[in-house]
Amino acid sequence: MPSTNLTFSSAEAHRNWLEGQSALPRGFRVGRTRLEFMPVEVAKPAKMNLTLIVLDEPTPSFAALFTRNAFPGAPVLIGRQRLKEPTLGAVVVNNKVSNVCAPGGVEASERLCSAVAGKLGLSASQVLPCSTGVIGWRLPVDAMVDAVPQAVSALEAGSVMPAAEGIMTTDLYPKARRAVVGNGSIVGIAKGAGMIEPNLATMLVFLMTDVDVPREALRTTLHSVTQRTFGCISVDSDTSTSDTVALLSSRKVPCPSLPEFEAALERVCADLAEDIVRNGEGVHHVMRVRVHGAPSEEVARGIGKSVVNSPLFQCAVNGNDPNVGRLVAAIGKYVGANHPEVDLSRCTLRMGGRVILEHGAFRLDNEAEKALVAHMKGAELYASVAPPDGLTFRPPVTFPPHERAVEIEVDLGTGPAASTVLGADRSHEYISENADYRS
Amino acid sequence: MPSTNLTFSSAEAHRNWLEGQSALPRGFRVGRTRLEFMPVEVAKPAKMNLTLIVLDEPTPSFAALFTRNAFPGAPVLIGRQRLKEPTLGAVVVNNKVSNVCAPGGVEASERLCSAVAGKLGLSASQVLPCSTGVIGWRLPVDAMVDAVPQAVSALEAGSVMPAAEGIMTTDLYPKARRAVVGNGSIVGIAKGAGMIEPNLATMLVFLMTDVDVPREALRTTLHSVTQRTFGCISVDSDTSTSDTVALLSSRKVPCPSLPEFEAALERVCADLAEDIVRNGEGVHHVMRVRVHGAPSEEVARGIGKSVVNSPLFQCAVNGNDPNVGRLVAAIGKYVGANHPEVDLSRCTLRMGGRVILEHGAFRLDNEAEKALVAHMKGAELYASVAPPDGLTFRPPVTFPPHERAVEIEVDLGTGPAASTVLGADRSHEYISENADYRS
Repeated sequence: MPSTNLTFSSAEAHRNWLEGQSALPRGFRVGRTRLEFMPVEVAKPAKMNLTLIVLDEPTPSFAALFTRNAFPGAPVLIGRQRLKEPTLGAVVVNNKVSNVCAPGGVEASERLCSAVAGKLGLSASQVLPCSTGVIGWRLPVDAMVDAVPQAVSALEAGSVMPAAEGIMTTDLYPKARRAVVGNGSIVGIAKGAGMIEPNLATMLVFLMTDVDVPREALRTTLHSVTQRTFGCISVDSDTSTSDTVALLSSRKVPCPSLPEFEAALERVCADLAEDIVRNGEGVHHVMRVRVHGAPSEEVARGIGKSVVNSPLFQCAVNGNDPNVGRLVAAIGKYVGANHPEVDLSRCTLRMGGRVILEHGAFRLDNEAEKALVAHMKGAELYASVAPPDGLTFRPPVTFPPHERAVEIEVDLGTGPAASTVLGADRSHEYISENADYRS
Repeated sequence: MPSTNLTFSSAEAHRNWLEGQSALPRGFRVGRTRLEFMPVEVAKPAKMNLTLIVLDEPTPSFAALFTRNAFPGAPVLIGRQRLKEPTLGAVVVNNKVSNVCAPGGVEASERLCSAVAGKLGLSASQVLPCSTGVIGWRLPVDAMVDAVPQAVSALEAGSVMPAAEGIMTTDLYPKARRAVVGNGSIVGIAKGAGMIEPNLATMLVFLMTDVDVPREALRTTLHSVTQRTFGCISVDSDTSTSDTVALLSSRKVPCPSLPEFEAALERVCADLAEDIVRNGEGVHHVMRVRVHGAPSEEVARGIGKSVVNSPLFQCAVNGNDPNVGRLVAAIGKYVGANHPEVDLSRCTLRMGGRVILEHGAFRLDNEAEKALVAHMKGAELYASVAPPDGLTFRPPVTFPPHERAVEIEVDLGTGPAASTVLGADRSHEYISENADYRS
C-alpha cells in the first residue's frame, strides 16, 4: 500500500482521475435517485439517495462479508440469509438511515427488496439490501418504494460513478478503484468516513467484476483479501453496525488464474481501504504503522491498532508534534494488557525512516525533532481553518491533495510475523462533524 | 459514586471546600519547591515542581500498585523493588518529565532518592520516586538534586494542599478527598487529566492514613479497592507508563475494623477516581455507565469501557446529541468482538433514567429526544468558548461546577454481574490541549 502515489492539485484533477477508475465491468448497470422524508424522531426533513447496482443476469458467483458488531442492522441480518440463495441479481443501497434496531426494520428492508425485484423481474431474495446512516431512525420505506421506479429508469452501463456518489454520507469525495485482470476488470467503490474499525468488513464496499470466478473460490478469496486490507484500518476504532463488503461477478470473461485475480482484488481493496482512511472524518494525516519481527500476526496487528487508535498520539500527530513518548505508551499499553510475555527490550522504532528508539532507550535530539516535524508536515493533508462561528470546523478541501502518510515502523526483533495498519489523526474537524451529526 | 453531590459557584468556593478535605493525618508532612531546567530536546526552558511526602518515622505499612504498561517508567521499575523493602520513609514526586525509556533513567531516579534520603536521615531504598509529564525527555537530575534542600525546608504538617498542587500537570485544579476512620483519617490526593485508562492503578494517587493497618492487609485492601475504583475509569483509553497508587500508614491510631477501613478507603478512592475523570482534559460531561444483568464482571466492565471509549459516542455527548445509535454500536462492537455468545435480545438501555431500547428495538420519539437533550445539558460542565486565535480552545472554568453525570444504564438481562464505569466526552479542548502539549 498504496499501489499509487498520487498528488492532486484540485477537486477537478481528482475527479478526472476518478473517472478513469470508474469503467463498469461488462454485465453491470448502476443508477440512483434522490428522495426527501421526515424522520419521526426529529422535526425537520432529511434527504436520502437510493442507489441500485444491477446485473444483466442474476449470478451464482457472489460473496459478501458483514460486520461482527453484535447489534447488526436489519440489512445485515437479511444479507446473511441471501448468501444461501442460488443467485443474486441486484443490490439496493440507501444512505442517511442505517435501519439498526428500528422496530419493524427487517420487514421494511424486505418490502424495499420486493419493490426493486418487481421492477427488475427478480424475486426479493435475489436483491441484497444495504443501509448506512443514522442509527435509531426508521427507514422511510413508503417514500423509498415510491422512488424505486425512478432509480430503475436511471440505470446505465458505462460508469460506476453514479453509485460511488450515491452511497456517500459524510464522505468528502467518492471513492473508486479499478484493476485489470486478463480481458476483464474489477471495479470497487467504498463509502465510509466515520465508525470505522471494521471487524471482518467495512462500511459498504461493493466490488464488481466480469471475471468468471466460481462462487466458493470467490468467497474464499474475498475473505482472505479483506483480512489483509479492510481488516487493517481504523479511523476511530468504532466498529459499525452495518459493515458490508460485497463482490459480484457477471462471469462474462474467463479468469486467467485465481492468484492473478486475488492479486488484482487485493490491490483494489487495499487502495479502497487507504482511500477510506484518507477520507476519514476530519483526517489531516494518514498514519501507516508497519509492525514486523513480531511473534504472531495478531500481536503485530494489535500493536498497529493500538498506535493508530491512541487518542493522545492521534492529537500529537494532528499538531505535527513528534511526541514519541505517546507512541511508546500506546505500544506498551497493548503489550502490557494483552501479551505481557513479549519482551520489548529488543524493540526498535522508526518514524519517517529515522531510528527514534533502540534497546529500550530513546535516540532523540534537537536535530531529530526537527526532521520528524518536517516528515509530519509533509504528510499533512490540510491545516485547520478557523471557522466563521468560532466552533464549527469544516475541512477546507474536498479532495485528497496527496497519498503520503506518517510512516511508523515497529521492529519487535522477536519473531517472523508482520502486519501493516492504517489509521488517522484526531482533529477539531472530527469533533465538529460528530458533536452534532444528525442535525 | 459519588459519595457527595456538590455544586460549586466559583473557584473560590471549590477551594474552600478542598481546604476542608485537606487535613493531613498524624505523622505526615508535605512540602514542595519549584525549579527551572532546559530540556535537551527542545530549545526553551521548562518549569517543574519537586514535591515531598514524608513520614515522621519510616513505616512497614505501605502499599503501592503500578501500571501494567509494558514500557514502564524508571520510577515504576524502582517502585516495584521498594515494595520488598522493610520500611518506607518518604515519597519524592516531580511533574513535567515522566522519565520513561530515557537513557540512564533508573540511575537518575536513584540519585534523586539518595539526595532526598541524605537530607532526611534515611537510606535511598526508603524513598519512593514518582515522575509524571512528558515521555521521552530526560530528568534534569542535577537541578533536581540542587532543589532538594529547599523542598525539605518547606515540609509542614497540617495540610496536604502543597502536595495536591505540586503534583499537577494539565490538571485544572488540585484533587483531595478525606474520610474519617475511628479516631484517625485517610486523605488522598490525585494527579491525572490525560493518558487515563488505568490498568491496575492510575497516574499518581497518594493515600495517607494514620490508621494502623498491617502491611499485608493494607496491600490486599488497596488492591481490591483499586480494582473497583481507579480500575473503572477512562478519560481517553490511553494507559499511562507511570500509573502509581501508593498508600502509606503512619500507624498512629488503632484500626477500628478492617471492613470499616476498607469502606472509607473505597469512598476516598471512588471520589478521587471521579475527580480525575471530571477534571480530565477537555471534559464537558462525565458519563456514568452502570451495567448489570451481565454474565460476568468482565463483560459488564468491558461494555462500560466500550461505551465511554467510543469516539463517536463521546462526540455526540459533547454536542448534547442523544445519538443512542452510537451507544448501541459501542455495546455491539465490544460484545461482537469479545463475547459473541452473549444474547443482546434481552438488553434494556436507559439514559437519564428513561428506557430508550427494549427487546432489541428502540423506543424513541420527539418527546424522548427532548428529554434526553435536557438530561445531557444538565450534566454539562461548560460549553466551548470560541478561542481568540480561532484554533486553541481552553476550558473557561478552573473548578468543577457540579458533580452531575450523563447517566447510562445497560441491563443485559442475562446474569448476576454488574460494574459501573466512569468516562468522559471528547471536545475541542482535548484536541487543543494535546495537539501541542509539549510546547
